[in-house]
Amino acid sequence: MPFPLRRVPTAEFERVLAGIGAAPDRTRAFAALTRINTLYMITRAGSGHLGSSFSACDIVCRLLLDELSDPFEEHGDVYFSSKGHDVPSLYAALIGLGQLPEEQVHRLRRLGGLPGHPDVATAHMPFNTGSLGMGVSKAKGLILSDRLRGRSRRVFVLMGDGELQEGQVWESLGGAARNGMSELTLIIDHNKIQSDTLVSAVADLGDIEARFASYGWGVLRCDGNDVNALAKVFTARSERFPDRPAVVIADTVKGAGCPTFAATSMPAGEWRYRFHSGAPGDEDYLAAHAELMASADALLKSAGLAPLRLTDEDPRPAAPAAAGPRLPEVYGRVLLKRAADDPRIVALDADLVLDTGLIPFSRAFPDRFLEFGIAEQDMVSAAGGLAAGGLLPFVHSFSCFLHARPNEQIYNNATEGRRVVYVGSLAGLLPAAPGHSHQAVRDVSALGAVPGLVVLEPANAREVAAAVDHCLTADGSVYLRLVSAPVPEAVAALPAAPLRTGHGHTVRAGGRIVAIGSGPVVLGQLLEAAWLLESDGVDLRVVNLPWLNRVDADWLAGLAAEADVLLVVENHYTHGGQADTVARALLEAGLPDLPVFHGLGLTEVPACGAPAEVLQAHGLSAGQLAERVRALTAAAAR
Amino acid sequence: MPFPLRRVPTAEFERVLAGIGAAPDRTRAFAALTRINTLYMITRAGSGHLGSSFSACDIVCRLLLDELSDPFEEHGDVYFSSKGHDVPSLYAALIGLGQLPEEQVHRLRRLGGLPGHPDVATAHMPFNTGSLGMGVSKAKGLILSDRLRGRSRRVFVLMGDGELQEGQVWESLGGAARNGMSELTLIIDHNKIQSDTLVSAVADLGDIEARFASYGWGVLRCDGNDVNALAKVFTARSERFPDRPAVVIADTVKGAGCPTFAATSMPAGEWRYRFHSGAPGDEDYLAAHAELMASADALLKSAGLAPLRLTDEDPRPAAPAAAGPRLPEVYGRVLLKRAADDPRIVALDADLVLDTGLIPFSRAFPDRFLEFGIAEQDMVSAAGGLAAGGLLPFVHSFSCFLHARPNEQIYNNATEGRRVVYVGSLAGLLPAAPGHSHQAVRDVSALGAVPGLVVLEPANAREVAAAVDHCLTADGSVYLRLVSAPVPEAVAALPAAPLRTGHGHTVRAGGRIVAIGSGPVVLGQLLEAAWLLESDGVDLRVVNLPWLNRVDADWLAGLAAEADVLLVVENHYTHGGQADTVARALLEAGLPDLPVFHGLGLTEVPACGAPAEVLQAHGLSAGQLAERVRALTAAAAR
Repeated sequence: MPFPLRRVPTAEFERVLAGIGAAPDRTRAFAALTRINTLYMITRAGSGHLGSSFSACDIVCRLLLDELSDPFEEHGDVYFSSKGHDVPSLYAALIGLGQLPEEQVHRLRRLGGLPGHPDVATAHMPFNTGSLGMGVSKAKGLILSDRLRGRSRRVFVLMGDGELQEGQVWESLGGAARNGMSELTLIIDHNKIQSDTLVSAVADLGDIEARFASYGWGVLRCDGNDVNALAKVFTARSERFPDRPAVVIADTVKGAGCPTFAATSMPAGEWRYRFHSGAPGDEDYLAAHAELMASADALLKSAGLAPLRLTDEDPRPAAPAAAGPRLPEVYGRVLLKRAADDPRIVALDADLVLDTGLIPFSRAFPDRFLEFGIAEQDMVSAAGGLAAGGLLPFVHSFSCFLHARPNEQIYNNATEGRRVVYVGSLAGLLPAAPGHSHQAVRDVSALGAVPGLVVLEPANAREVAAAVDHCLTADGSVYLRLVSAPVPEAVAALPAAPLRTGHGHTVRAGGRIVAIGSGPVVLGQLLEAAWLLESDGVDLRVVNLPWLNRVDADWLAGLAAEADVLLVVENHYTHGGQADTVARALLEAGLPDLPVFHGLGLTEVPACGAPAEVLQAHGLSAGQLAERVRALTAAAAR
Repeated sequence: MPFPLRRVPTAEFERVLAGIGAAPDRTRAFAALTRINTLYMITRAGSGHLGSSFSACDIVCRLLLDELSDPFEEHGDVYFSSKGHDVPSLYAALIGLGQLPEEQVHRLRRLGGLPGHPDVATAHMPFNTGSLGMGVSKAKGLILSDRLRGRSRRVFVLMGDGELQEGQVWESLGGAARNGMSELTLIIDHNKIQSDTLVSAVADLGDIEARFASYGWGVLRCDGNDVNALAKVFTARSERFPDRPAVVIADTVKGAGCPTFAATSMPAGEWRYRFHSGAPGDEDYLAAHAELMASADALLKSAGLAPLRLTDEDPRPAAPAAAGPRLPEVYGRVLLKRAADDPRIVALDADLVLDTGLIPFSRAFPDRFLEFGIAEQDMVSAAGGLAAGGLLPFVHSFSCFLHARPNEQIYNNATEGRRVVYVGSLAGLLPAAPGHSHQAVRDVSALGAVPGLVVLEPANAREVAAAVDHCLTADGSVYLRLVSAPVPEAVAALPAAPLRTGHGHTVRAGGRIVAIGSGPVVLGQLLEAAWLLESDGVDLRVVNLPWLNRVDADWLAGLAAEADVLLVVENHYTHGGQADTVARALLEAGLPDLPVFHGLGLTEVPACGAPAEVLQAHGLSAGQLAERVRALTAAAAR
């Protein structure tokens, strides 16, 4: 039975702010309202980082309401979150303060709305974050520019405790101390749980206070869900360390604010915190909403205010029809099977065991499952060491991080001739809700020239199995590009074709108008485009070429001989990917006649939003592809 | 007056090892001989890292002679250097021990010889190093593979103190402690001087012992140039920390072993240590050689052995004829001039102030010169912060590091729309003496798809000035690719042409056989090839296209109309660079007739060696290019 989602109108925030004179009560009440709207936003969006948003909420509210001078003015103090995925509660607070338009409360993770990670296009977002570990470095740059321009403002940066595993954090600390950056305060949202599970289980931080102190930073610690304690710690920060950067280690509870989400409510022995990302189910939503309302009303009552008046909004959108299994999940099962027969296989993970499909492997082969935490560079170089020792490492992360953060380490492994399989999930434009820090659309370019490394993108479950088998027997290294978005039915149904490096195969027979693509997103749109084109009498042939940085010259020459138009569609920037590789090979083949050639892909930084609206925004929807095919067909006929 | 270079024959090492019964005297004497040959090798090679080789020499000799079990057997203990540039003394020791062929003593940094940084193709080099910060990660991988395969050996890794500025080091420590890696010993060659100057002046390490201890490592400290102290510290390492990884902070002197090179001999107030890289001049060579001989003979005498019998070898090769200024030097002067007029300009450096041409800037604008140490990720994200604050950051490092280590950070800046200029020196295949960790031939591919970023490679001093001016007024970001090898005379003499994005210009008029290239190396070889081809009646037109990831469609169409053959030659891998960009544009232009097209570049990991031999090894010498042009011309005529 659908029920309305409920949220706090901005007018109610105003009433509470006006009605409660001072911190800490005012801040507490404001935080309570902020949590209600954070829950609303994430539930409506269908995904978002609840746990982090709630653990950091009191810190954010204390900063915005009480600590920062003129935070919404150009000259004022600056706050931003380096981990970034806690941004829903920041958005909710900014909307409550009238600093973002109220209607945006409905548009988290939608095109033209509020991205899943911060983006400078949104007001009061100084930096794009979500690529972890960059916050202190960016803050230092801002402070250095202020000093050179004769300005002065304080900068507060929030980081996650899992984020501290990134090497860049430790690169960035020394310079702040050497420069006596009293302007800079780092706050660690120390909620003890990273993406998958407890920080202590993934990559324990050891003596975190000693670590910061050894870099010359002032170190303070407090309860980060207690606005009173936060008030005191910020006072102590200026008094005790007036001449240097300081870190506040804020002990928080992931999901703090209501028992349903609070990590302290996790049953004993439970391995996984359930509210890191995604959206709560109906039952959890209703329970948490009631808990949050009770807290808020208690605070209002003790301040002598009338109970909160919520707005009923539409029920949450129906969940998309049950899709088949996602490719990373399929991949994880295939790897598990192969590992049973092949003792060389080891799996390396960087805190994404769930999203990379590795849970079954980690349980079946605990000794051969190696967890590195959020430390991709370390993981990749260790894979080189494992390969040197005679094993076959499969290295996992989200593609956005795996191709870029350890880019030099991947190259270094290649120069040693090590055989390593890099498996990047969440590849490509979709899902587009997390935002561009998580949309890997530059990976083929960034890795395409690594010697001896092939980039391979399977389209469905059968191709995933074939791809894993290829990895086991290939001569060189493989970057396996796994789309995590659901596989469209038409693509899921495609039969497997034998994998031969640089060779493609036809997945929809057709005439002399030929489209090349790979992976579930592109092939799904192309198959749909072919269907749309049928009524125009255009018989589009669709070819699946899963090799993104290789094409066999003879195979391509054969295809070209049968084509008047050759369109390459990429789930990637137009530059440095498959279209470049195909074009180069086509031209160098020295054929007597060449088809009309065109490549389509992304020309802009990926938009955030729902799949259909984002494909449309980038001109990659089936309808738009059909339109391009019509235009190219007309050109070829001229 | 040329004089012979002198070295210790392997037979003399054998005599000394046989004649002195035990450590520490045996080790001391062996180290003395090793230093003499290290000096010989670097002087003959014309370049190499003397200071580090000498500071680490006693550690290396103690390990190889006394600490490691069966170091030259498959099952034995493993030693490698993570910083890698101290490898000349390791080579000298291995040659002295008969573990590398004696004739290799003459072949440091030569094709088929001993690379400037370690490579697995050389015996007893477990890993490719020289890309800093990877050592502990690789060692962990090796140890994990040993454990899984039921083997056990100890692994000793040497790191530089400057190297500790790399974030990856701090990513890698925690996992070793969590896994109780008692097999792993890290030794810090704490010589207090990094590439440019004192570590404390660049990026002070703070309380280095506390830092390691905070990660759960055992920490020990000793005099790293005293083999007795080293013996004691390694005993203490096993006794005190039998269940976990440990670090030995070895206090050393850069250039230890003779007063001429010892950093302790630096005059008071001297800013720069002179023997980090390069080769000593005649006077320094002779002085140091005499000092080293005196030390060695004193040790032999006290052991009752006859004086050392050296072999006279050829004099050192004549230095190459004085070349014009290198492009980074020219660049530094241009930036200095522009900065005087443009207060937005700030320069960021990662411990390469000399090699990136920034010394004049750093002196003239100390406030606007920002030193980050060997921390490229931190530097690039800070540049984002500086740009956010309204400045125009110019970010510097060797290209090999700048395009790869902070690859994700560069992309992140781009998604914010920040305008940043990335200046990578030491780009391309030449100089080829340092080895592939320092030869940036994948940079265009790795950065080519970054939105809004153009890759621009100037060929001579005039083009450098024009390129800097372009950076000041461009809409987007620029990656300035600077070759550090000398500019050939013919290229130095080329007049400047106005820079228009994606447009090239003819630098040698010719007929319908056209070669496109950029930068001093490629254009130098092409101009020479054109001269060679004249006698065959082939009139090669050479076009300079300094834009490596952009080409203007109309300009290209015009060029194609005047060409029967179009050859693109790249100082880069064949994949993902200029040839792909040109081919794609050519094909998409839909021209009625297309020239015969071919791209040439690197297809293998770059070789180490002298410029001419390395160009030849990769098929990129003028003679080989001329040969290819002849073949293509014949093909076009068919």
